[in-house]
Amino acid sequence: MVAALRSHFNGKTKISGNFGSLSGIAAVFSACLLSALPAYAVEIASPDGRIVVDVDTRNGIPGYSITFNDKPVLNFSRLGLQFQKAPDFVEGFDIASVETKTTDLVWTQPWGEEKDIRDHHKEARIVFQSQTGPARQMTVTFRVFDDGVGFRYDIPAQAGVDAIKITDELTEFTFHDNLKAWWIPAYKDNRYEYQYAASSIDSLDVIHTPATFEGDKIAISIHEAALTDYASMTLRRPMMHGQTLKADLVPWADGIKVYANASFKTPWRTIQIADTAYELANSRMILNLNEPNALGDVSWVKPGKYVGIWWCAHIRTCTWETGEKHGATTENTMRYMDFAAKYGFDGVLVEGWNIGWDGNWYENGDLFRFTEPTPDFDIEKIAAHGRKVGVPLIGHHETSANIVNYEKQLDAAFAFSEKHGMRAVKTGYVGSRLNDTEWHHGQYMVQHFQNVVETAARHHIAIDAHEPIKDTGLRRTYPNMMTREGARGGEYDAWSHAAQGNHPDHATILPYTRMLSGPMDYTAGIVDLRFGEQEENGVSSTVAKQLALMVVIYSPLQMAADLPENYEGHPGFQFIRDVPADWEESIALDGRIGAYFVMARKDRNSPDWYLGAVSDEQARTITVPLDFLDNATTYRAEIYADGEGAHWLDNPQPLAVKTKTVTAEDSLNLELAQGGGQAIRFTPLAAR
Amino acid sequence: MVAALRSHFNGKTKISGNFGSLSGIAAVFSACLLSALPAYAVEIASPDGRIVVDVDTRNGIPGYSITFNDKPVLNFSRLGLQFQKAPDFVEGFDIASVETKTTDLVWTQPWGEEKDIRDHHKEARIVFQSQTGPARQMTVTFRVFDDGVGFRYDIPAQAGVDAIKITDELTEFTFHDNLKAWWIPAYKDNRYEYQYAASSIDSLDVIHTPATFEGDKIAISIHEAALTDYASMTLRRPMMHGQTLKADLVPWADGIKVYANASFKTPWRTIQIADTAYELANSRMILNLNEPNALGDVSWVKPGKYVGIWWCAHIRTCTWETGEKHGATTENTMRYMDFAAKYGFDGVLVEGWNIGWDGNWYENGDLFRFTEPTPDFDIEKIAAHGRKVGVPLIGHHETSANIVNYEKQLDAAFAFSEKHGMRAVKTGYVGSRLNDTEWHHGQYMVQHFQNVVETAARHHIAIDAHEPIKDTGLRRTYPNMMTREGARGGEYDAWSHAAQGNHPDHATILPYTRMLSGPMDYTAGIVDLRFGEQEENGVSSTVAKQLALMVVIYSPLQMAADLPENYEGHPGFQFIRDVPADWEESIALDGRIGAYFVMARKDRNSPDWYLGAVSDEQARTITVPLDFLDNATTYRAEIYADGEGAHWLDNPQPLAVKTKTVTAEDSLNLELAQGGGQAIRFTPLAAR
Repeated sequence: MVAALRSHFNGKTKISGNFGSLSGIAAVFSACLLSALPAYAVEIASPDGRIVVDVDTRNGIPGYSITFNDKPVLNFSRLGLQFQKAPDFVEGFDIASVETKTTDLVWTQPWGEEKDIRDHHKEARIVFQSQTGPARQMTVTFRVFDDGVGFRYDIPAQAGVDAIKITDELTEFTFHDNLKAWWIPAYKDNRYEYQYAASSIDSLDVIHTPATFEGDKIAISIHEAALTDYASMTLRRPMMHGQTLKADLVPWADGIKVYANASFKTPWRTIQIADTAYELANSRMILNLNEPNALGDVSWVKPGKYVGIWWCAHIRTCTWETGEKHGATTENTMRYMDFAAKYGFDGVLVEGWNIGWDGNWYENGDLFRFTEPTPDFDIEKIAAHGRKVGVPLIGHHETSANIVNYEKQLDAAFAFSEKHGMRAVKTGYVGSRLNDTEWHHGQYMVQHFQNVVETAARHHIAIDAHEPIKDTGLRRTYPNMMTREGARGGEYDAWSHAAQGNHPDHATILPYTRMLSGPMDYTAGIVDLRFGEQEENGVSSTVAKQLALMVVIYSPLQMAADLPENYEGHPGFQFIRDVPADWEESIALDGRIGAYFVMARKDRNSPDWYLGAVSDEQARTITVPLDFLDNATTYRAEIYADGEGAHWLDNPQPLAVKTKTVTAEDSLNLELAQGGGQAIRFTPLAAR
Repeated sequence: MVAALRSHFNGKTKISGNFGSLSGIAAVFSACLLSALPAYAVEIASPDGRIVVDVDTRNGIPGYSITFNDKPVLNFSRLGLQFQKAPDFVEGFDIASVETKTTDLVWTQPWGEEKDIRDHHKEARIVFQSQTGPARQMTVTFRVFDDGVGFRYDIPAQAGVDAIKITDELTEFTFHDNLKAWWIPAYKDNRYEYQYAASSIDSLDVIHTPATFEGDKIAISIHEAALTDYASMTLRRPMMHGQTLKADLVPWADGIKVYANASFKTPWRTIQIADTAYELANSRMILNLNEPNALGDVSWVKPGKYVGIWWCAHIRTCTWETGEKHGATTENTMRYMDFAAKYGFDGVLVEGWNIGWDGNWYENGDLFRFTEPTPDFDIEKIAAHGRKVGVPLIGHHETSANIVNYEKQLDAAFAFSEKHGMRAVKTGYVGSRLNDTEWHHGQYMVQHFQNVVETAARHHIAIDAHEPIKDTGLRRTYPNMMTREGARGGEYDAWSHAAQGNHPDHATILPYTRMLSGPMDYTAGIVDLRFGEQEENGVSSTVAKQLALMVVIYSPLQMAADLPENYEGHPGFQFIRDVPADWEESIALDGRIGAYFVMARKDRNSPDWYLGAVSDEQARTITVPLDFLDNATTYRAEIYADGEGAHWLDNPQPLAVKTKTVTAEDSLNLELAQGGGQAIRFTPLAAR
């Protein structure tokens, strides 16, 4: 294998064996044709040996390639950076040195989709040294896990260079095969809120990450981890033909991609690899590539479920703005708090509670005041009632993408939230540009986000960000960065006829794409699926699918989005009450992108398991072995299935609730309707 | 239904019943709020009543809407045109008069996928008259068939306006539902040669037609018919939100969309509608909207199968350019002619036969000479040999998109072809712009194409155009315009590893998209699926799928693309010899876009039926009732199926040939491998 790969590589030949003490990492001393200095080619294998990364130079251009199960995945793909007024890292390089290490440890998430996370990888820190042109040094660190590869540029200060302006990152992902990509377009006004498209790599233009690529016996997701002070990476196909995607950093309005210090690290570029697409959902690599908790004691960060004065505004039975139908009144909020207390929800979100919504807020975001309630919202009374019934408010900061206005008030805003007992704030950035100028995906937004997260942390507030920067796993480092939108959520189903909202396959694509980046505040759990006046609006889903989404789409702050009056007395409400928002373990069991997905999760605070399955517009029967259950236990399965004749468009309401006794040796045949789903709670009955 | 539609329409109310003598066409006299003149709203139903078109004005803006099975398909969608230096057709209009008629006739194709075509439609010719602004008249003719709607602008000369420069066509297609679209991008350098993407309408940017839209119990294809002297129409989604696609005419380099006379007709804008996507493939509406045969006796146009010196160039065992490996030599051509004669093929295509290929022809298209063979290609000897064995040459004119150079030689080129016994010429337009300037899809290419077709007809030559303008059914009017490329064809499988070529789902999307426009010279029939040197290249298909494509992908000039030496002795070759290229009848039997497709066709010259089925990367079993067979006959089915273990990537060669006796009452279970297919010939054994 190594020899075969070598033969592509610029005439270099492997003349020594393993280098260093780690098996699986071979630094190869080779005869260099371009320079009198010795040069290395480096090979790093994953702990299980299935993923192999080769790092080398070709004609002085740094690059890497990847194989999986001895088959090429990425062909030689360049690495490099370009700067304004500083020598570029493009060519003339050779590998000067390599440091290697192996890590195998388990760390614990304070909350999450899985409690204990194993971080097992091999690392090679590779120093590329210029052989021609000005003296330059570019360090790239690769980490190879059983579930993928991460690498980051780690640039030391260069002689004579102070602050750096990055004008381009040359990182490539040159696919060996013309895989089928699942993607949303980048550089669009609607941010990440597009339904996913599927097409071959060689038909792509420019797309956001995470993007997922399917082939024969392989699935790949490309994304990034630990985006804290850099532009976000999109992927652009630069050639007329070909299967190369190139990093395309979202620029500032002035064209510069990133403003950096003389010494800087980029986020990790991540390439998750699995045999099948649904197994990508079991990868924790993105989290592993983030830094450990930087906040210390975060017992004040509390996962949970919430309800809110929100859906009514989307279906137009209440308004954000003040007036007759204003949703955010003292009385209405206390009613929601009572409902939440009665049924065990952990918070009440109220949108439209503050000054700024009246008039055209979309254009006049500088009117928003984050410490000034509307006259009909008595914050003192509400906060007192919340304390009494044990249900805090969830704050809301819609900025309408006016960052200047928000940042001026930021500390006061979170102090206000803290003072009134809030544990979490939902932020919002509706608008096609920040301050009418900057993309939501550039370094400016990344920096602002970091500012918000850190400010919120000082006030012991968690963040649920809408219209956010994409998730890159920062919740590990900042556990108060809990959840976010960053995709088309349930709101798109509120605005129109069911045939006009999210397509039924949307929820069968998200788990393989957007959800690989982290939690999403999707706002599912709608049980009254038809509403509205003139033309009947509705959700493109059955009730069972709405319940299933509360398992399928992970969020540590999970909204049960429907109205209290629709929940009370509904046969599906019991599942919404039962399903937790914090998990011991999560296992994607089966699926096919754009067709179906099955997820099982174990409650973090009980021995119960939960299962969610969702289908696209096809009806289907999925056989699921229950071998994830404890082998020594008999369980009662409470099954929330599509009822007779259920159909996402014609007949969304039928729900069949039944119970069954099962063990780990059984299989269940899940029958999903067209656009349907199934949700199951497994509760231990007895030891077997 | 009508009343319900009225209520959406600008306060107009229906105050009279049917207008004119035709049931199903109701011209509605209504109280107009904007003008003192009376105004009409027009409703036209398809012969079976399932499709209903309403034409009206809203605030003076002309528009139309469509329902299918009483459900809205297109909401009010505007009609209009804008001009340079002439009053626009945008607003201030009302319907002034309506002429209606019904047509029901059968016409016969000289060759085709179906011999006798029924044209059954209702027509309304609607005159919009300006009520405000300068006096203007815009006429739009609608034809409503059971399988869809066509409409065209038919603009009379306007007072004071001479030649017209169209700067925009405002035609909209405002979908009621957010359907799933299957599309290729427009305005790309690689012309139509992209793999199809699937995504929701509200995620689209700008796409080519035909584009296909799938919903619940409905499938729609939008395209155009009779594009003879206009720009081709692409579809652009103009809004951030929403499901409106707007006509986007491909401009000339100077920005003008169309240069027209004072009086002009646009091509027909077509909206084919069916209950399921595969039924779209049974629509002949595009042909029906073209003008009848304008060439008179076309007995010189002969459908058939051909082989050629072509695949060898793509897999690099021969070259287009002269030299040691030159494919187009006298000897090699005569060898192909002998092979063709022995096995019943109707022509031999030879590429690289003429002056111009040596050097960088891609950049130097002005070197191409279309009457000058290379020294090693003795055209006199070859033509004589062809006459002797009864197999004509198929000519080849690669222009490298240099239209100026080609048009200078055009008449001489076709005279040369005619003189040497050729009946067909394959043209080629490789390059991202015509003359480095114009899009392949603009009026310039349309005019050039028309020139080529008419010039060829004068010399009794048929055209097989590669890198063409898209098909809009002109073969009805000009039956020598036989077939074309206009999509990613089999050649993409020649250039690379099987995992890098056409994705296995490509052939399961084409029948629902590209093929709705007309025949395609796909160049299937490859039986040796792995080849090449360093890295093994190959076709992303099984052998059975390659055979099936010769039924699935209709072309009246059907290439059996593999090398003679690969065919001789191959068990699949008998099917390639047997399968005709001219059909009595064609019936799409089953399918799902991007998953599978099943087509049955009856030979035009025998009682035999043929069936082709293709699958994407999934293996599947399809049960096909044989009720298309003659009920009074017993047939022998010669079945070419995927052999044991066949797989498009890992194991493409296994082919299982078997025979079975069947009748119209039987069903067959077609077992298709991953990326596989099945081809069947049904031959009458006896009367039952």
